[in-house]
Amino acid sequence: MVALQHEPSGRDRILGAARDLFAAHGFHQTSMAELAAAAKVSVGQIYRLFKGKEDIIDAIVANDTRDREAMILALQRRLDAGEISIERTFELLLLEMMDNPHEALSFDILAEGFRNERVAQIIADMCAHFRKSLGDFATIANPALSGKALEGAEEIILACMFGLGHRSLSGSALSAECTARQAADMLVAALRAMS
Amino acid sequence: MVALQHEPSGRDRILGAARDLFAAHGFHQTSMAELAAAAKVSVGQIYRLFKGKEDIIDAIVANDTRDREAMILALQRRLDAGEISIERTFELLLLEMMDNPHEALSFDILAEGFRNERVAQIIADMCAHFRKSLGDFATIANPALSGKALEGAEEIILACMFGLGHRSLSGSALSAECTARQAADMLVAALRAMS
Repeated sequence: MVALQHEPSGRDRILGAARDLFAAHGFHQTSMAELAAAAKVSVGQIYRLFKGKEDIIDAIVANDTRDREAMILALQRRLDAGEISIERTFELLLLEMMDNPHEALSFDILAEGFRNERVAQIIADMCAHFRKSLGDFATIANPALSGKALEGAEEIILACMFGLGHRSLSGSALSAECTARQAADMLVAALRAMS
Repeated sequence: MVALQHEPSGRDRILGAARDLFAAHGFHQTSMAELAAAAKVSVGQIYRLFKGKEDIIDAIVANDTRDREAMILALQRRLDAGEISIERTFELLLLEMMDNPHEALSFDILAEGFRNERVAQIIADMCAHFRKSLGDFATIANPALSGKALEGAEEIILACMFGLGHRSLSGSALSAECTARQAADMLVAALRAMS
């Protein structure tokens, strides 16, 4: 029973250390020995919990996906309850996307998505999930949207979320708050103008 | 003189092979020996032309930047000459961005931007250059735009370009043509609605 009680904390420590090391040096440039040292566990313990580095990346992506889905669902609930406007919903969504302390890791993960079928599948599933919620948001902004117009709108909101969520290399002078507010207003105006 | 005549073609062969290998296996997982074999040159020849792998990445990013800047300038000239509308300008711009055969490499390069100051600088310079042209496009859509509203518009168009340029992992069912047309219309509507 002791092992069972300790496993979750060992697992979380490994995932936390992996996130930091992968972000700083890259996924492929981090060895299991470095990871074990940073997580204060043995290499053997890592291999008891994960099949290998790819399995750790899978777990990180799955965690991030769960967090983001929960964030979107929480926004959707507040929107449905009439607590926040559709503009404010997009604004908060974009602010969450821009609050990305591990952008470098996120690029490594995306690159990995092209070389690792499982990671690609997790990313595609996450996007499909996002798209459903974004479609709901888009039809709240413009109830007339349907079919290809709605699909396109979902895709473009997703692109905007993704682009703004990876803006730190572009060297923008504008604050995240200002950008999110303006992008939200632009999205709602664009959605309302669609037929 | 023979060496001088051969150098450009050796250089191009190395860059072409590097692009393919880095895209397939990742930047850090490709060795100079593999690169030399694929480019049909000696490792020594690579080192006569490039200081190391980072220098090759620099050259790839610089080439891509030059190509993209030329593409945007060509669009700007056609727009200024009245050959294409502002909607069509955005549509063609987004289509060019979506035609990205090396998405995996592009993510590796972006991750490298967080770990390599020179790559970060090239990316930031490219974005600053883009932003200037995008600002011109935005004010053609809406001549009243200026100050922070214009800066925000540039940033959001850039995010949209970037997001749509990396859409293949998101598993969209919509064609690039359809997405570009709709995104262009949405951008123009959003820009016109801004005060």
